[in-house]
Amino acid sequence: MYNPIKEDLDRVDDVIRACLATEDKRIYPVSRSLSGASGKRLRPVFVLLSSKIGGKGGENVIALAAAIELIHTASLIHDDVIDKADVRRKKATVNSTWGNEFSVLLGDYIYSKAFFLLARIEESEILASLSRATSIMCEGEMIQIAERDHWDLSEAEYLSIIEKKTASLFSASCESGARLGGADSEKVNALSRYGSDFGIAFQIVDDCFDMIGEEKDLGKSLGSDLKAGKMTLPLIFLLDALPEKGRKEVKSLLQSKDRSASQAQIRQMVQEYGTIEGSLNKARAYLEQAKGALEILEGSVFREYFLKLADDLLQKTVSRESAAGKAQMTL
Amino acid sequence: MYNPIKEDLDRVDDVIRACLATEDKRIYPVSRSLSGASGKRLRPVFVLLSSKIGGKGGENVIALAAAIELIHTASLIHDDVIDKADVRRKKATVNSTWGNEFSVLLGDYIYSKAFFLLARIEESEILASLSRATSIMCEGEMIQIAERDHWDLSEAEYLSIIEKKTASLFSASCESGARLGGADSEKVNALSRYGSDFGIAFQIVDDCFDMIGEEKDLGKSLGSDLKAGKMTLPLIFLLDALPEKGRKEVKSLLQSKDRSASQAQIRQMVQEYGTIEGSLNKARAYLEQAKGALEILEGSVFREYFLKLADDLLQKTVSRESAAGKAQMTL
Repeated sequence: MYNPIKEDLDRVDDVIRACLATEDKRIYPVSRSLSGASGKRLRPVFVLLSSKIGGKGGENVIALAAAIELIHTASLIHDDVIDKADVRRKKATVNSTWGNEFSVLLGDYIYSKAFFLLARIEESEILASLSRATSIMCEGEMIQIAERDHWDLSEAEYLSIIEKKTASLFSASCESGARLGGADSEKVNALSRYGSDFGIAFQIVDDCFDMIGEEKDLGKSLGSDLKAGKMTLPLIFLLDALPEKGRKEVKSLLQSKDRSASQAQIRQMVQEYGTIEGSLNKARAYLEQAKGALEILEGSVFREYFLKLADDLLQKTVSRESAAGKAQMTL
Repeated sequence: MYNPIKEDLDRVDDVIRACLATEDKRIYPVSRSLSGASGKRLRPVFVLLSSKIGGKGGENVIALAAAIELIHTASLIHDDVIDKADVRRKKATVNSTWGNEFSVLLGDYIYSKAFFLLARIEESEILASLSRATSIMCEGEMIQIAERDHWDLSEAEYLSIIEKKTASLFSASCESGARLGGADSEKVNALSRYGSDFGIAFQIVDDCFDMIGEEKDLGKSLGSDLKAGKMTLPLIFLLDALPEKGRKEVKSLLQSKDRSASQAQIRQMVQEYGTIEGSLNKARAYLEQAKGALEILEGSVFREYFLKLADDLLQKTVSRESAAGKAQMTL
């Protein structure tokens, strides 16, 4: 699938590895463990593919892709501190191995390395766009924390939060990649919209899986949203679907001390009431909208790759749904 | 004292305030409380004074000074999380009011705002220098955490840590300010050395005060170094001064469960053995070296301001010493 950018992706990995290399024996083991724990590299894929639209590639695009992956990595390290997560990418998280204090600083360190890479690009518009996306991402996460245990959060408020915390960086990946590749502004805007819609869908799917997935399948700590009092779409839809009495019952479940028992009940309810399916339908609608944004690229071979990436995520919503069915059976 | 830059400093405050302004009612109270809690603004002072050497001022220099103060603020917010500090600048810390999770994200948010400001300057060399200084700062703090409870840390290792965690940002403030102001490279280098030596002295004084100061005088939580197992110069000198038996006793004090009792004993010992004085002497030597680095500015009116800033810190070492004497009397 990633053929046209396979070599570039390897170069991105090299840049990330070089960036995290340090001679200090007290930091080296941590940064080495990070370089090895490569994730899906979705954001670099978007940067590289977007750059192909205008056709200009080269060192700058590689640096941009690496910088965005580092920003994402830094945010994950801090997220895992906040969520007290133990497992990520099938490995122990930085916080569970090296402690919270060290993880906070390592995240900062990686952020600064990312901005150092962006400085090398010498395009202040790109840097402005990425630093803006980073602050929007943090803003989204801060709002989510401020809204913890607010069980009346609306669908619109939820969507606005995930647009900030997740879609902004996807959108900036596509937009800055396209811009650096020399695409015209119409195409840059189309890719920016694609990235944003893809990102919203991505987060909805992620949230559904946090609620009903199995840790062994996903290789990361799950169930953290309910534990942390975060509202997500299946829960919003469930509260909407229930009559007043049921709504009160669910809210008291959400506030109960015995989180794991109440979690099991809520898992069962979101499946019984079909609100996981409803949420995944929403994700699918965003993916269709993402694909629609790329009409302007009609005829470009790279458009197919973007459509395929959206379809891959669509496919996950289907397989996750059947996984959800399975989970329901075993509950 | 800051007359030649007084108006500029007000403009720096305005930029910081504008940068932290947000319409979101869930974040606004926090950012407002930050804008109000202005510290000494030492790093902006260095940026502004350094820019005067070359003579080119303007918006870019203001943005640079604001960005560096934001980087410093972000690092303080994360430091307070790590040190579990309750008071800073005579006010409750962000973490004590809004919690650790929120503080981690707010720090990230402010870092990204700082880099957004730096992007506006459109000088990639300045951005590279600041992102490098930020990663060195984080590296220094990570090493310090890795060296916690290592009571054999040498003076050289301690100095290398504080050079990274504190002096690098002071040095970058002077260097980038001078560069942006159009100073020639010899002067840029001289100011960079001044900033580095000043920063080392600053941290030594800070560490002495963490050990023997009074919270009500300083308006921030103290005693955190000993609590956190951080080695600082007075303690290194104390262990050097003691015979083997005394050294063992101090190390067992350092490891004792009852930290506040052992802290009181150590406070007494560093004063009895004169190792606070020895440490402050070291700080004074660095300040003399800092002043010496500025010979190249002979004749410039701004040199006097730099000398005065070093002398102000020297003066603190004297008054802190007499405070130390007082503290000893009351122990």
